[in-house]
Amino acid sequence: MFYHDRELQYKVRVDKPNPVFARMLQQAIGGIEGEIRVCLQYLFQGWGSRGPQKYRNMLLETGTEEIAHIEMLATAVALNLEGAPMSVQDEFAKDKMVGAVLGGIDPRHVLSSGLAAMAVDANGVPFNGSWVVGSGNLAADMHANVMAEATGRVLATRLWEATDDPGMKDMLAFLIARDTMHQNQWLAVLEEIGGLAGAHPIPNSFPQSEENQNFNYSFVSTYIGNDTTEGGRWTSGPSIDGKGEFRVEKAQPLGGIPQLAPPEPRGHAQTE
Amino acid sequence: MFYHDRELQYKVRVDKPNPVFARMLQQAIGGIEGEIRVCLQYLFQGWGSRGPQKYRNMLLETGTEEIAHIEMLATAVALNLEGAPMSVQDEFAKDKMVGAVLGGIDPRHVLSSGLAAMAVDANGVPFNGSWVVGSGNLAADMHANVMAEATGRVLATRLWEATDDPGMKDMLAFLIARDTMHQNQWLAVLEEIGGLAGAHPIPNSFPQSEENQNFNYSFVSTYIGNDTTEGGRWTSGPSIDGKGEFRVEKAQPLGGIPQLAPPEPRGHAQTE
Amino acid sequence: MFYHDRELQYKVRVDKPNPVFARMLQQAIGGIEGEIRVCLQYLFQGWGSRGPQKYRNMLLETGTEEIAHIEMLATAVALNLEGAPMSVQDEFAKDKMVGAVLGGIDPRHVLSSGLAAMAVDANGVPFNGSWVVGSGNLAADMHANVMAEATGRVLATRLWEATDDPGMKDMLAFLIARDTMHQNQWLAVLEEIGGLAGAHPIPNSFPQSEENQNFNYSFVSTYIGNDTTEGGRWTSGPSIDGKGEFRVEKAQPLGGIPQLAPPEPRGHAQTE
Amino acid sequence: MFYHDRELQYKVRVDKPNPVFARMLQQAIGGIEGEIRVCLQYLFQGWGSRGPQKYRNMLLETGTEEIAHIEMLATAVALNLEGAPMSVQDEFAKDKMVGAVLGGIDPRHVLSSGLAAMAVDANGVPFNGSWVVGSGNLAADMHANVMAEATGRVLATRLWEATDDPGMKDMLAFLIARDTMHQNQWLAVLEEIGGLAGAHPIPNSFPQSEENQNFNYSFVSTYIGNDTTEGGRWTSGPSIDGKGEFRVEKAQPLGGIPQLAPPEPRGHAQTE
Amino acid sequence: MFYHDRELQYKVRVDKPNPVFARMLQQAIGGIEGEIRVCLQYLFQGWGSRGPQKYRNMLLETGTEEIAHIEMLATAVALNLEGAPMSVQDEFAKDKMVGAVLGGIDPRHVLSSGLAAMAVDANGVPFNGSWVVGSGNLAADMHANVMAEATGRVLATRLWEATDDPGMKDMLAFLIARDTMHQNQWLAVLEEIGGLAGAHPIPNSFPQSEENQNFNYSFVSTYIGNDTTEGGRWTSGPSIDGKGEFRVEKAQPLGGIPQLAPPEPRGHAQTE
Amino acid sequence: MFYHDRELQYKVRVDKPNPVFARMLQQAIGGIEGEIRVCLQYLFQGWGSRGPQKYRNMLLETGTEEIAHIEMLATAVALNLEGAPMSVQDEFAKDKMVGAVLGGIDPRHVLSSGLAAMAVDANGVPFNGSWVVGSGNLAADMHANVMAEATGRVLATRLWEATDDPGMKDMLAFLIARDTMHQNQWLAVLEEIGGLAGAHPIPNSFPQSEENQNFNYSFVSTYIGNDTTEGGRWTSGPSIDGKGEFRVEKAQPLGGIPQLAPPEPRGHAQTE
Ligand SMILES: [Ca+2]
Ligand SMILES: [Ca+2]
Ligand SMILES: [Ca+2]
Ligand SMILES: [Ca+2]
Ligand SMILES: [Ca+2]
Ligand SMILES: [Ca+2]
Repeated sequence: MFYHDRELQYKVRVDKPNPVFARMLQQAIGGIEGEIRVCLQYLFQGWGSRGPQKYRNMLLETGTEEIAHIEMLATAVALNLEGAPMSVQDEFAKDKMVGAVLGGIDPRHVLSSGLAAMAVDANGVPFNGSWVVGSGNLAADMHANVMAEATGRVLATRLWEATDDPGMKDMLAFLIARDTMHQNQWLAVLEEIGGLAGAHPIPNSFPQSEENQNFNYSFVSTYIGNDTTEGGRWTSGPSIDGKGEFRVEKAQPLGGIPQLAPPEPRGHAQTE
Repeated sequence: MFYHDRELQYKVRVDKPNPVFARMLQQAIGGIEGEIRVCLQYLFQGWGSRGPQKYRNMLLETGTEEIAHIEMLATAVALNLEGAPMSVQDEFAKDKMVGAVLGGIDPRHVLSSGLAAMAVDANGVPFNGSWVVGSGNLAADMHANVMAEATGRVLATRLWEATDDPGMKDMLAFLIARDTMHQNQWLAVLEEIGGLAGAHPIPNSFPQSEENQNFNYSFVSTYIGNDTTEGGRWTSGPSIDGKGEFRVEKAQPLGGIPQLAPPEPRGHAQTE
Repeated sequence: MFYHDRELQYKVRVDKPNPVFARMLQQAIGGIEGEIRVCLQYLFQGWGSRGPQKYRNMLLETGTEEIAHIEMLATAVALNLEGAPMSVQDEFAKDKMVGAVLGGIDPRHVLSSGLAAMAVDANGVPFNGSWVVGSGNLAADMHANVMAEATGRVLATRLWEATDDPGMKDMLAFLIARDTMHQNQWLAVLEEIGGLAGAHPIPNSFPQSEENQNFNYSFVSTYIGNDTTEGGRWTSGPSIDGKGEFRVEKAQPLGGIPQLAPPEPRGHAQTE
Repeated sequence: MFYHDRELQYKVRVDKPNPVFARMLQQAIGGIEGEIRVCLQYLFQGWGSRGPQKYRNMLLETGTEEIAHIEMLATAVALNLEGAPMSVQDEFAKDKMVGAVLGGIDPRHVLSSGLAAMAVDANGVPFNGSWVVGSGNLAADMHANVMAEATGRVLATRLWEATDDPGMKDMLAFLIARDTMHQNQWLAVLEEIGGLAGAHPIPNSFPQSEENQNFNYSFVSTYIGNDTTEGGRWTSGPSIDGKGEFRVEKAQPLGGIPQLAPPEPRGHAQTE
Repeated sequence: MFYHDRELQYKVRVDKPNPVFARMLQQAIGGIEGEIRVCLQYLFQGWGSRGPQKYRNMLLETGTEEIAHIEMLATAVALNLEGAPMSVQDEFAKDKMVGAVLGGIDPRHVLSSGLAAMAVDANGVPFNGSWVVGSGNLAADMHANVMAEATGRVLATRLWEATDDPGMKDMLAFLIARDTMHQNQWLAVLEEIGGLAGAHPIPNSFPQSEENQNFNYSFVSTYIGNDTTEGGRWTSGPSIDGKGEFRVEKAQPLGGIPQLAPPEPRGHAQTE
Repeated sequence: MFYHDRELQYKVRVDKPNPVFARMLQQAIGGIEGEIRVCLQYLFQGWGSRGPQKYRNMLLETGTEEIAHIEMLATAVALNLEGAPMSVQDEFAKDKMVGAVLGGIDPRHVLSSGLAAMAVDANGVPFNGSWVVGSGNLAADMHANVMAEATGRVLATRLWEATDDPGMKDMLAFLIARDTMHQNQWLAVLEEIGGLAGAHPIPNSFPQSEENQNFNYSFVSTYIGNDTTEGGRWTSGPSIDGKGEFRVEKAQPLGGIPQLAPPEPRGHAQTE
């Protein structure tokens, strides 16, 4: 169950409202790197957790924190939209700057939401539930979470660079810090459940003896030329999971040419 | 540039065609854990690569291998669809097994593709380009790739369990082996560019002094009760990136209650 | 800000797990009538609220309750999936009932989530952020909310009819009751801000003198035949908003035939 | 069956073509508040209508009118696109105004449609069939329709404010008037089938004795603080449907902590 | 403008309702080969038509006919859903056939629409406005229309094979006939505007002297082996548009290795 | 199987980087007229091909070439993004041109991809797998391919007009030439399998005697007025497929008024 506090987790202050920045902030709300995604991802992982209770608890706590981040960003969008241009015509002709701003805003902030945040990304593409990854495998999910916080922190640092509003920079410095912690948090779980050698290959519950032994540690080079290795770590030496030895193999076809049956008559292929 | 070979990378054999399994295999083609996603993800990461050339080359080679995996799975779908029921009515009434099969197939395999694979998942939901993650940050992208191969290998092992067709099990054992390698391959890049301490927090090019120092290594507990830590690795000790010390803090609101301006008249809020 | 309690808002008990019913429950999680939609809708409306504070507070409180409903339903899905068939082949041939169940389940519950809920509807179509309506007009939003709770309660009663599991019926009887309250709650706001006569036409802040006076209270009949009225309430008498008189008018074209300019040469229309 | 007239329902005149306004008008065509949605929504509701014939007839007539609204708006988009900039480069450098316009247009109006309307919203996001709500419950559907016309009229008034083109203002004044009527029309049906007391809770065919009697008229306050009621109409007094008495209850967990079974081995959770 | 008739264009009779066939029919309503797509496609092409008036008129007339086809199919879906199973539990256990049917239906027909058609395909994937193609080039659009009617007629013949209900077969025989006409109709326009030699390459308004003369009539063989031609018509002889001579060329890279600039510092790539 | 070459198929040179043009180029990558679509379309058609082997081979070879086109365009996007504005604030106020550019770019090129191409269209709408058409009928598929190359070449000529960068014009002149060939190539297959008379109506394997003989060659005029024919080729004379005679018929309803059963009680329609 959940409870709400009317105060925000951290201060959201906008010194100079900028509707173009409002649009950019939408990426951190409804984009694939955004807070709705991590919020639902951690909550769904927690709700489906079938292992030790402490992971469920922790996932649900951090998922709950992420709702507060959506709240902060939604507030920041609304504050940045104050004073946005509401008309294309007169001002457009008279004031080039308004025209420029108009080009950069999300028109739906004016037309659809009445100067408020929406569940969409910086291009107005709606949040998509397919981004909510929970596989039932804790290690796979922790990697999904590290990835979400890594791309999320990259996004937040780019937003930080894109503005010189002190209030916005302060809010983003908070969110960037939280992403630092969350990256570490998911990595801590990975360490706890065995680290690289213990966890990989994921899932570690599938008997590796059943996988094809000729291809599980080979870099298959599909390069049409010759010098494929370039000394990459993945071309020789022990594999990172400690269970094999890297090697390089030129791609070659082992599967023959596939032969499908002729068309089923009731499927009405063309008579050629 | 790219070239094609008429032979498959590895043998695709279906001993007992099963249209319900064909539908399941679609998840490995057009699902978020599937081969179209990793194919385009590695290719787009390679095409946008602005760092050392060897990562670009390697990404493009493995992206190219993944096209061959789509090809294998598309062939497997077509072979599993041979003999699928083409009608709901007569057989439906007469043969309960056909009715059961009919329930489990993707009707679009009969209606839309003529017993061939499509660019959709196991529920017929189309492949979505938003899943193709390439952030311009190599470490974030490598985590995205490990995550894709981890959820992909989980999927492949579940498909392996779902069938007892020897041909299908053999093909899946090959694909599972490739996922083992690919997990290791992306982890090898992460090791090469600094490992946990060197790479995190991602992006490592943002000065950590700019992030909020009070919140970058705290587990914020949003639990309404008391015992939040449960000894998790993320609650104390050095952080995984080696740059901080984990601690636990009860969530508390620091941001006050937000105050938005009244509605803009031309936005036609309701007069209350 | 938000807090989490490890206990559920209401008991979720599954007496006889049924993976087909698990799939149906997904509609109440990730469908357009589902709980993710109302949760985000009320929260976004609250975060963008620019009128009296009490509506913001109330919206955020009820939005918070809806997260607990997602949690209950996600738990119900996970419990219904216990014992789901994991394989298509052997059992398929041997046990017709398993085949039938297999046809009715969401294969991604087996393949993607590991027997847990996902952010999708009963057909596996992902939740879509476009469903989150917040217009910045309180009356319009209250109607959006009544509509969500009306279709939501219809859905919940159909789920109640679809199962005879006592635990599931009890949980649904709770959710149905909450929908009763929530319908009344949004209607109470509509009463408070003026009722039918005060609130309509929405937005009531647009001067009605500016709208076309010939068409604002006419039922335009596009029926090609004659008897269009059939005594419907909308054909005569005072309008529901009390600002006009209903009448019926046969559709007729007043706009002439549109004339577009010839193609722009650089747009490369066909030379005909 | 349907027939077409070459003339428009109402005049569409554009005095000063403005491709940025063309983009905005797309929201009224292919957006969730737009005309394709109401058109298909009323038609599908009519086609699925299983109650008195007069509702079916009326829904189909108004659905048919909405096609004429799409036609008017599509014409308006085409007229506003005449003279749109076809190139980014030269003009871009030379004329700042063209650059500003270029920023605000939908590039697909130039690249994909050849200066014509498309079935997308103001951000180019395609129309989505999930928005077409028809529940089989007349009261729920009427609320869906009121909501569509309320958000639609809000949108139309914002478009009216965004332009000073007399022709466009005249066309929008017509469409705004039609939305006034349509709001009243669906409300008239709601009055006819019982009004608030007769229709709610929707569906009124479910025996209220089956819903949980402790929670059907309580405002559940999830606020972590104390003063939750603020005298809202929804906190005390008779419920709007006349079937209960409003009261307020602090949220408390009644459901215990959920216990899921351990992972199914063939689902390959991680061995921890 | 548009008008409605209460009678259908052609009789829709269902002798033996079959909810699995109802689901299949959805493909012809809301699928990419379906009637909503052609309806909107022809209407949008007509509304954007900037050439001779007769094409506009004809497109709008046929677009109008397609609404009647949606209407027929929506009626057929509703009729096929009568008697559909409303519950998973009891019957499921007792009657294997009901279980089988249950597996094959769209659960949203029961849960969301109340036994009526929806704007979705046979897998419940919503209609998508991106499928509505209108390019502003008449020849390209005619090909889009032939393609729509060709895949549409293939779909209709497969539906015809999938049922033995005489009423449904009769309705489909009508729709198949209309697709025959519509294929011919769009081909007739192509003949009228110049046929293969006159219309191709589309757009014929772009000066072919500006396209790269070395690659406009070569089949580029990307086959890694040798025997690429196999005597296909596209390998030698005059081109179909009569403006060139087919030849075959082995793929070879002419573009060198691309060199991108190093990362922009504010984009926070990883420090490697 | 597939191989990769590090060199591009054709030179990609950008003389004056323009981030607005980068956004436009995205339409040719991830739009419905773009290269990902044709690439996957030809490959999936090839992988599902059940007719003569030479069509499979050719489809796979050209599908492989299209990957190289995605590669070229992705490179062009990255090169055009060099020097893109990374911030909205300071420069925005100071330099109107930067503001104008900012309005026209895809903000996700800055925020999400780090100045690289993405699998989206010019509005940031993700590539959608539903666009990948492969019907199992060769003639229908060839029309789908001609259509893709016709709209694709229209798009490419518009991009050519939109830029005056010599490098970009040269690259587009190459891609336009390839579209010329590909249109001819699919038309060549259509000629080879029978031309208009042999191939139509598609599918030609369905016995035309089964289609409704009264409606297969009639233009059904839904025009409410009189003069419907205007001498169009589709109104009289032999049909294009040579199997009928065109004629015109005024639309008239033959299907009566549909009668649906009353609502199923467990579906909880409203009690009216
Ligand atoms: Ca966060
Ligand atoms: Ca793979
Ligand atoms: Ca609820
Ligand atoms: Ca309207
Ligand atoms: Ca049709
Ligand atoms: Ca191409």
